[in-house]
Amino acid sequence: MAKSWATLGVDLHLEPAGPHLRRGLTDALREAVRTGRLAPGTRLPSSRTLAADLGIARNTVADAYADLVAEGWLTARQGSGTRVAERTVAAPSAPGGPGPRAPHRPAHDFRPGAPDLAAFPRAEWLKAARRALLAAPNHALGYGDPRGRIELRTALADYLARARGVRTDPDRVLMCSGIAHGLRLLGTVLRARGVRTAAVESYGLDAHWNQLVGAGLRTPPIPFDDRGTNPADLGDAGALLLTPAHQFPMGVPLHRARRTAVVEWARRTGGLILEDDYDGEFRYDRQPVGALQGLDPDRVVYLGTASKSLAPGLRLAWMVLPPSLAAETAAAKGKVDTSSALDQLTLAEFITSGAYDRHVRASRLRYRRRRDALLTALAAQAPDVHITGIAAGLHAVLRLPPGTEHSVVQSASWQGVALHGLSYFRHPEAAPDGLDALVVGYGTPPDSGWTGALEALCRAMP
Amino acid sequence: MAKSWATLGVDLHLEPAGPHLRRGLTDALREAVRTGRLAPGTRLPSSRTLAADLGIARNTVADAYADLVAEGWLTARQGSGTRVAERTVAAPSAPGGPGPRAPHRPAHDFRPGAPDLAAFPRAEWLKAARRALLAAPNHALGYGDPRGRIELRTALADYLARARGVRTDPDRVLMCSGIAHGLRLLGTVLRARGVRTAAVESYGLDAHWNQLVGAGLRTPPIPFDDRGTNPADLGDAGALLLTPAHQFPMGVPLHRARRTAVVEWARRTGGLILEDDYDGEFRYDRQPVGALQGLDPDRVVYLGTASKSLAPGLRLAWMVLPPSLAAETAAAKGKVDTSSALDQLTLAEFITSGAYDRHVRASRLRYRRRRDALLTALAAQAPDVHITGIAAGLHAVLRLPPGTEHSVVQSASWQGVALHGLSYFRHPEAAPDGLDALVVGYGTPPDSGWTGALEALCRAMP
Repeated sequence: MAKSWATLGVDLHLEPAGPHLRRGLTDALREAVRTGRLAPGTRLPSSRTLAADLGIARNTVADAYADLVAEGWLTARQGSGTRVAERTVAAPSAPGGPGPRAPHRPAHDFRPGAPDLAAFPRAEWLKAARRALLAAPNHALGYGDPRGRIELRTALADYLARARGVRTDPDRVLMCSGIAHGLRLLGTVLRARGVRTAAVESYGLDAHWNQLVGAGLRTPPIPFDDRGTNPADLGDAGALLLTPAHQFPMGVPLHRARRTAVVEWARRTGGLILEDDYDGEFRYDRQPVGALQGLDPDRVVYLGTASKSLAPGLRLAWMVLPPSLAAETAAAKGKVDTSSALDQLTLAEFITSGAYDRHVRASRLRYRRRRDALLTALAAQAPDVHITGIAAGLHAVLRLPPGTEHSVVQSASWQGVALHGLSYFRHPEAAPDGLDALVVGYGTPPDSGWTGALEALCRAMP
Repeated sequence: MAKSWATLGVDLHLEPAGPHLRRGLTDALREAVRTGRLAPGTRLPSSRTLAADLGIARNTVADAYADLVAEGWLTARQGSGTRVAERTVAAPSAPGGPGPRAPHRPAHDFRPGAPDLAAFPRAEWLKAARRALLAAPNHALGYGDPRGRIELRTALADYLARARGVRTDPDRVLMCSGIAHGLRLLGTVLRARGVRTAAVESYGLDAHWNQLVGAGLRTPPIPFDDRGTNPADLGDAGALLLTPAHQFPMGVPLHRARRTAVVEWARRTGGLILEDDYDGEFRYDRQPVGALQGLDPDRVVYLGTASKSLAPGLRLAWMVLPPSLAAETAAAKGKVDTSSALDQLTLAEFITSGAYDRHVRASRLRYRRRRDALLTALAAQAPDVHITGIAAGLHAVLRLPPGTEHSVVQSASWQGVALHGLSYFRHPEAAPDGLDALVVGYGTPPDSGWTGALEALCRAMP
C-alpha cells in the first residue's frame, strides 16, 4: 500500500499492518534522507502528527524516528524536535580524496552484529597477505572455482574439524560473501528441489529470513521457550534455520534433547537443517557447544563467517554442505567465484600459520572482560535489569520491566546510545510472548571508548 | 530433455537443438568428471558412437570433447582415444596444505578473457595494501554501503573522467563483483521497471547474456557488419548491451555514426545503453575511443572492471549509473556491500598513488609487443590467415578458410593449445554469417612461456 506523506512530498510504500510496517517506514524515511528528498536540517512532523497523517500508531513512527536517530540520519533534541541530520556531502570527483557521505555515527553503538573493528589484527593480516600473495601461483589470480580457493577450503576444513567438530573435506566447503549470501544460495537450491517452507526461529535476523523468502520459500517461525527453540511441530517444513550453539539474539544454546530431536526430524522427513554458527568461536564459562553438523553431516548444512571473528568488511563466509547438495549449491553460485582471491589466500595463510587461533583467543579474553564489566556495572547501577545469554558470543539480553522496551530504546537514542530492542529481532508471525528486553552488542565499541560507552549505557537504563 | 548415456550411467540434461546443445553436453560431461562419476582414466566412447547414442551430430560431440581437452578434464592422444584426465585429488583435511584438484591446464592457453596473470604487480599491490589498511578508519572494516567504499568510488570517478571521458560523481558509482554481476543487477532493475527486452550484439559472452535472461529479459541479437554492431532496428528493446570501444570478440570500435545513432535511439525511446568497457585501457595504434557514456550520462550505464587491467581474482568491477537508476540499482545489490573492503581500499590507494596508471602503461607496452610478435609470426608461418581486431585489447580475430574453424580448434586442442573458435561467441539466435575464425587471447600466456606458446599456435594453423 503506497501512502503519500503530502506535507513533505515523500511517497511511503508501507505494508498495511504488522511489524513490517515499522521497518517499511524506517526504510522509506532513510531512503528519503539518503537521496536528498528530505534535505539536511528539515524538521520532521511530530510522531503524533505523522502517525495521524498516515493512519498508523504513534509508537510505530516514534520507533522509526528512534532507529534513524540511532543510525545518524536524523537528529533529535528536546525542544527542537526531530530533524534531518546535517551531513558532509562529497563534491563530485573531488581531487582531495574521499568525501564522507555517511551519516553521523552514534556516540556509542551497542547494536549487535559486528566485532570490535579496532581490534582487527592489521599488522598480522598484512604479514599473512604478503606471504600468501608472494607464494600464490599465477592462476590463483584468475577466474576461480565457484567453491572458492582450494587453499582456504582446505584450511577451513581442518580448522572447523578441530575447533567446531565439523566433519567435512575441502570439496564440500563453499565460500560465500556472507551468511545471507549462503542462505540465498541454499534457498534457491531447496526451492528448485520442490521445498516450499523453511521454518525459522521466532527471534533472528530478517536479513536472513528475507534471503529465503527471496528464493521463494515461506518462513514460518517456530516457538521459543526455556530450552531454546522448540522443534516439536515443524509442519511440512523441508528445512529449518537454526542458531544452535548460541541462539541469536536470545543467547542460549539449543538444549541437548532438542539437538537430538531436530536431527531425528531431519532424518525422518528428509529435511535439512541450516546451522548458522555465526559466533561459534566465543565461549566463556562453559565447554564449547560443538557444531550440530557433527551429528549428521548428511542432513546439516554448516554456515560460518569471518564477520564476527575478524571483520564484516572481508565479506568471507563459508558453508559446509552435505555431499548431495555440494555440486548443486556451487552451481547456484555461478560459473566463477565471486569472492576476492587475495583475501581468501590471506585468510588461508592466517589460519594455517596459527594467527587466526591467536586472534580468536585474544578476542575471547577481550570480550569476556567486557562482558564481566557490563555485568558488574549493570548490577551496581541497574539492579532491576536481568541479564541473560551471557555465556558466549558478543551480546547480552537485558530483560526490562514489561512495556518499557520502546521508551528505553528511544531515550537511549536521544542520549547518543544506539540500541536495539528485542522486538527488532522478533519474527513478524511469532506469537506474542510479552518479553521486553534490549539486545546489547558489547563487541562494537572500541576499547578506547568502552568505559564511556558503558557509562552511557547504564545511564540509559530504566 | 534429459537423455541417459547408458553405457557410462551418466545422465545428460540436454536441450534438443541449437548451439546450447554443445554447451549443455560440455557442461554435463565436465560435471560428470568433476564429481567423479566418470573416473580418471575412463575411456570415453568415440564421438561417432556417442553422437549416435544421443541422436545428435557428431561434430557437437567432437566439439565438446575438444573443449574439455582444452580445459584439461579430458586427455586425447591419437591411438588411445579420449580419456578422463588423471588428477591429483586432495586428501580430506590434508595437513600439508592445499591439494590441487583442478584439472591439468592446457600447455598453451589462448582463450581470451584474462590478462597475463604473471604480470600482476604483486609487490606494488602489497605496498598499496599496507598504506591503505594502516590508514583506514575502523568503520571501513564493518558492513559497508552497498555502493562500495567511498574511497574507491571517488578514485574511480576521477580516473574514469580522466582516462575514459566518463562523466560522473562518486555517488553514482556502484561496485560489483564483475561485469556479469553488474548486468544481473541492471537486468533486475530494468525488469522491475517493465522492460522485457534487452538487445545484445551478435557476438559476445553468453555469461553476460545469461545474466539478463536470468533477470527475466529476452536478449535478441542485433546484426553485425563492417561498421560494427548495427542498431538500425532495435524493435521494442528497452535496453541495448554494447561493447562500443572494442567489440568483443570482433575487435572493432563502433563506428562514429552508430555511436551517435544509438544515443539518439536511447533519447528517442527512453531506452538504456549498457556500455561494457571491459578493456578500455588497452589501445595501441590510434587515439583511445572515449566512453559512450560521455555522450549522455543519463542514458548510458558504463561498466568497467579490474579483471583485464589487473586480475579477475580481485572480483572488482564498477558501474557508473544515470541519476535515475543509482538508488534502485544499489538497492538491488542489497543492504550491505558484497565486495572486500580491503581490496577496495587497496585499489583506491593503487589508483590515487599513480601505480594503476603505471601498471596500465607497462601492460599496454607488453601486450603491444605480443600483438606485434603474433602478427609477424603468423605472417611468416600462416600467410593465409587474415587478422583483424588488433588495434586494441588483448585478443585478435584470425579469419580462417570457410568450414575449417572446427577442425583447427580441435587439432589445436590435441596439441595442447587451448583456443576458442568464433562460433563459441556467436549468439544462438544470430543470423548465420559464414565466418570461420579463431579468437586468440594473447594476454594469457605468461611472458616466460610466450615464445613457445606462439610457436605452438602457429603450428596449429591450417
